[in-house]
Amino acid sequence: MNVEILAVGTELLLGQILNTNATEIATRLADHGIAHRYQGVVGDNAERMEEAIRNAVERADALITTGGIGPTQDDITREAVAAVAGVDLELDETYATMMRDRWESLGRNFPESNLRQAYRPSGAQIIRNDKGSAPGFRVKVAGCWVISLPGVPAEMLTMLDEQVMPFLQSEAGVDDAVVVSRVLRSWGKSEAAVGELFDDLFHGSSNPTVAFLASSGVIKVRLTARAGTEEAAYEMIAPLEAEVRLRLGQHIFGTDDDTIECIIHTELAERGWKIGTAESATAGIVASRLTSIPGSSATFRGSIGAYAPDLKVSILGVSQATLDEHGVVSEETALEMAHGARRVLSVDVAVSVTGSAGPARLETDTGTMCVAVVTPDGELTRTFRMPGDRERVRAYTGTAALHMVRLAMERS
Amino acid sequence: MNVEILAVGTELLLGQILNTNATEIATRLADHGIAHRYQGVVGDNAERMEEAIRNAVERADALITTGGIGPTQDDITREAVAAVAGVDLELDETYATMMRDRWESLGRNFPESNLRQAYRPSGAQIIRNDKGSAPGFRVKVAGCWVISLPGVPAEMLTMLDEQVMPFLQSEAGVDDAVVVSRVLRSWGKSEAAVGELFDDLFHGSSNPTVAFLASSGVIKVRLTARAGTEEAAYEMIAPLEAEVRLRLGQHIFGTDDDTIECIIHTELAERGWKIGTAESATAGIVASRLTSIPGSSATFRGSIGAYAPDLKVSILGVSQATLDEHGVVSEETALEMAHGARRVLSVDVAVSVTGSAGPARLETDTGTMCVAVVTPDGELTRTFRMPGDRERVRAYTGTAALHMVRLAMERS
Repeated sequence: MNVEILAVGTELLLGQILNTNATEIATRLADHGIAHRYQGVVGDNAERMEEAIRNAVERADALITTGGIGPTQDDITREAVAAVAGVDLELDETYATMMRDRWESLGRNFPESNLRQAYRPSGAQIIRNDKGSAPGFRVKVAGCWVISLPGVPAEMLTMLDEQVMPFLQSEAGVDDAVVVSRVLRSWGKSEAAVGELFDDLFHGSSNPTVAFLASSGVIKVRLTARAGTEEAAYEMIAPLEAEVRLRLGQHIFGTDDDTIECIIHTELAERGWKIGTAESATAGIVASRLTSIPGSSATFRGSIGAYAPDLKVSILGVSQATLDEHGVVSEETALEMAHGARRVLSVDVAVSVTGSAGPARLETDTGTMCVAVVTPDGELTRTFRMPGDRERVRAYTGTAALHMVRLAMERS
Repeated sequence: MNVEILAVGTELLLGQILNTNATEIATRLADHGIAHRYQGVVGDNAERMEEAIRNAVERADALITTGGIGPTQDDITREAVAAVAGVDLELDETYATMMRDRWESLGRNFPESNLRQAYRPSGAQIIRNDKGSAPGFRVKVAGCWVISLPGVPAEMLTMLDEQVMPFLQSEAGVDDAVVVSRVLRSWGKSEAAVGELFDDLFHGSSNPTVAFLASSGVIKVRLTARAGTEEAAYEMIAPLEAEVRLRLGQHIFGTDDDTIECIIHTELAERGWKIGTAESATAGIVASRLTSIPGSSATFRGSIGAYAPDLKVSILGVSQATLDEHGVVSEETALEMAHGARRVLSVDVAVSVTGSAGPARLETDTGTMCVAVVTPDGELTRTFRMPGDRERVRAYTGTAALHMVRLAMERS
């Protein structure tokens, strides 16, 4: 089976957004051992879209399109697919009713133009969209499956993983070819350092494979193997995983979907501890991450965003003497902030951040971030110098603060 | 002139890297008013590369390829272009000598394999590469300029900006054709509703054009025009912009790069007001957005993340009677939270959020979000029912809370 990707959207041709969808789909196809030889991008233009679809249908066994299936008049992918298939569009009554019901249940008027999304090329099967309103569809055109998904990445990815990849795998007749991946999550080493560490493994083999993904300071090492059974695939990964764990040691904090937020939540719950934050430069980023998982109220109580220096004194009880002697951006101030948060929020564990996210007035200060963690068993403080712009500095500091919480609990 | 882009590289088809080159080139083409209707990606495979080049040459006036011109055996773009052009490769003696000299001047032995890079399709002109060793080239194939550049972004971009764009503009004979865009940002209407509102405008014209982009509840209406001069292009947009502003009215909150965070910051600074937040379900999302812009300390003081109900009482001074009578998720509680934040944080404007981000224990509650804003001039409260999962509910609520701040200030 040979699959092509066609991304639809004039904003791609104008360079306004990156085509991350094609990369995500390509990764899945590679993981599943499905051949993928061509990607295209075309604008919201009927004639050119039809030509692109027609060309792909001639070459490929399946074509995945992304974008152009929303409710507005410039969303014309379903019309283009129907034209190439030589069929009409027809209304999916079930979907139409479901959409109306959803809007009514939210107490809002249903815009009739939304009905566009319930149309599909005659004979096409609907691909459910649980994260948005535009369903996808699949239809066979001259021996090639055309699979149309939305352009919104979160919606597209869920539909791809839950519905499209299983379908393609079964169509490819490789039901017994199982792809498994193991992701080892590490923090505290740069992407370049991790890459260098695994240079030999990376070039060693095409199955299993080693890949690296970096995101806000976390480096994920992804091991992927393809085999007849899940068991056999995991057996192929096992020695590689052991080697990676050996080389990265304590830098590895989680496996697969273990996020640092989940790990902290579990560790706190096991000890019966509650957590809170005191944030200056991050102003709530750490707290919003700790509450990103459902059920976080079992371990998270609250946060104090003390951005103005006087609030560090009035709410968190940081002493003016500490501020005068060590400055706002210091481990001493961070530590007093954390102690203050423990008291004011009535929590067992408090994490605090104070720093200069930039762009700084004093260049030497930019990206200097002090983090403190206080637990019932002790204290941990550290100063980070984060590179990059304001957004990057704040995001990386949020990640660093969470890992400091993990490290402080590991010691206790 | 109509230009296509073909990115070459198996790593793109495996999803290992993002095709940022296509986005960068597309932006330049749009800026220069050069039509760009198609992008492709193909692997390091001679047959498929030749087919992709042949197809593009038939459709376009110029084709820019990126990648596949390095020194290794899998770099075969120059062979593929020569094959489609029906010419041989020939050694560029000048370039070969230059390369040898460069290596010798660094005191290193010249690897003979590097000589591959000094070959070009017969008749092609070399495009200098000041940042790397692989030169590009351009050659006319069946009336279409094929312009081959390296895949390394920094090298490609420099060659593009310094040599390729000036060449294309002069070839296009449109030194004075300019494309301008105006983005009108709106909040409070769904993408479908906005689309419906502009149905007639959308079908009205191909220049200027109207497009819609949605992101976390904000709908951007983009107007784009092409003309001889910037002034003339903006003149073409003007009546369309007036019409869009008329129809969307107060839903429009910003133009082009105006974010809601910047607008709030400016409005607060003009009035000499400071702001703070009291957040339950969003736990710092609103505060972290308000501090995302440099200089936010001039208007933002702090936040109270009162996730646990008792902290709403102990820190923010919400009365137990209000919690008992109206519940934690109520406009009454939100209002008392905002008043509490004004007091505790010593701010003029406070915005509060309380709600159930889900997945809820009681299904009716999920996505119910109450927002309150208190300014020196008055109060504003509203209840939202946000669709989607936890992450989406929280992100959309963050946006909604910021827009409530704007609306509260507009009234005052």
